[in-house]
Amino acid sequence: MARRKNTKLPEQKPAFLFDLDGTLVDSVYQHVLAWGEALHEMGIELSTWRIHRRVGMSDGVILNALQRETGRKLHKDELEKLKQLHTAAFARQVEHVRPLRGARELLAELSDLSVPWAIATSGTAKGSKKMLEILGLDSHTKLVTSEDVAHGKPFPDLFLAGAKLLKADISNCIVVGDSVWDLLASRRAHALGVGLLCGGYGMDELEQAGAYRVYEDPDELIRHVDELGVEADV
Amino acid sequence: MARRKNTKLPEQKPAFLFDLDGTLVDSVYQHVLAWGEALHEMGIELSTWRIHRRVGMSDGVILNALQRETGRKLHKDELEKLKQLHTAAFARQVEHVRPLRGARELLAELSDLSVPWAIATSGTAKGSKKMLEILGLDSHTKLVTSEDVAHGKPFPDLFLAGAKLLKADISNCIVVGDSVWDLLASRRAHALGVGLLCGGYGMDELEQAGAYRVYEDPDELIRHVDELGVEADV
Repeated sequence: MARRKNTKLPEQKPAFLFDLDGTLVDSVYQHVLAWGEALHEMGIELSTWRIHRRVGMSDGVILNALQRETGRKLHKDELEKLKQLHTAAFARQVEHVRPLRGARELLAELSDLSVPWAIATSGTAKGSKKMLEILGLDSHTKLVTSEDVAHGKPFPDLFLAGAKLLKADISNCIVVGDSVWDLLASRRAHALGVGLLCGGYGMDELEQAGAYRVYEDPDELIRHVDELGVEADV
Repeated sequence: MARRKNTKLPEQKPAFLFDLDGTLVDSVYQHVLAWGEALHEMGIELSTWRIHRRVGMSDGVILNALQRETGRKLHKDELEKLKQLHTAAFARQVEHVRPLRGARELLAELSDLSVPWAIATSGTAKGSKKMLEILGLDSHTKLVTSEDVAHGKPFPDLFLAGAKLLKADISNCIVVGDSVWDLLASRRAHALGVGLLCGGYGMDELEQAGAYRVYEDPDELIRHVDELGVEADV
C-alpha cells in the first residue's frame, strides 16, 4: 500500500514537563533527612523510609500525610514552624546537592532539538532558584512552583500549569518524575508519565503508579528518547 | 483420622538472625549520604540512589561495586582513605540515628518467648557497638560483625556464623533484613529470608531477591510473628 504524505493531521510534537528534586537534581536524600530532623525537633519520630515515600508531594500534602502516620494533629503555627525547620535543615545540606547524571545534557539536547520543556516542582520559588543554579540554568527557564498553583502534587495543577506555560496540549506532554506523586499527578492531568529510579523508588512502585517507561536517570533517558516519540537524529 | 502425638520428630524451633542497619536501627539514609560525601571528597561522583542500593554489602564488596559503577580503579590506600572518610562523615550524622519502630520490642519479645536471636552485620565491631547502645542492648548481645568472617554480605558467612553462635541449625534460622544483599546471603546460607521495607527498598526488589514475607518494619513483624512459625501466645 502506498504511503500517503501530507495527510494534514495536526502536528503532535511532544513537550516535556520535568519534576526537579530527585529527577534533575540529586537532592531527595538530603530532603528526607531534613524532614526527619525537623520532625524530631518538634518531638515527632517518623522512620526515614516513610518520609522518603512522601517527598515529592507538596509541603501541605506531605504534612497531612505525616500527621496521619504519626497520629498527631499539628496546629497551623506548628506546621509553619515545621516547614521552617525543614528549610533550615536542608540549607545545611545543600552544598552536597549536585545535578543527576545526564540532567544538564538532557535539557540541552531537548533545546537543541527544539522540543519544548518546563520544570514543574512542588518546591518553592526560592528553593527552586538554588536548584536551577546547580543545574546551570538561568532565570529564563520555564518553571512552575508551588506558589503558582492552588494544589501541589499529586494534584494535576502543576503539570497543567506547565503545559499552559509551554502553550502545549497536556495530552502531548511527557511528564518525567522520580516519585509516585509525579506519576499520579501526570495521570490525573492526562499526560504520559515516565519514571526515573534516581529518586530511590523501586521500579514496581513507579510502574504501578502508571509510568509508561522507567529509566535509571536522565542519562539513560537521553539514550532512549526515541522511545518517547522524539526524533533524536534531526 | 486421629492425630498422632509424640511422634519423636526432632524439635524445629526457629532462631532469628537480624541485620542491623536499616533493619533494627534507622541509619541507612545517613550511611548513604556519608558514602556520598566520602566519594565526593575523593573526587568521585556517584548518584545517591546508586549508593543506597549498595549499602548493606560489606565495605569491601561495596567498594568494588562503586569502582565498577564509577569506572575508576582505586588503589589500596585510596580505598582505606575512602572507608575512613565514610566513618568520619557517618559519625557527624550519628546523633540523628534512632531505633526503628518496634525494634526494641521485637527483640525483647523474642527473648521473652525463649526464641534465640543474634545480630549479623556487615558493619565493624566498633560501629555496631554504638548501634547496640542506640537499641539499649548490652555487650552480651550475640553479635557477628565483618571482623568475624572472611566475606561480608552477599556471601553467606555472616549468617552461618550467626547460626553457629546460637548453636542453631541454619536451615531453622529466619534471616531478617532490609536489603537484597541480606536476602541473597540468606538464600546462599539456606535460611528463610524475610524482608523489611524500612531500609527504603521497594517490595518487589525484596521479593525478587527471595523474601518469603515482606513487612514494613520490626513493629509489623511482631504482629505477624505467627506467620514465621513462632508461637506468640505462649
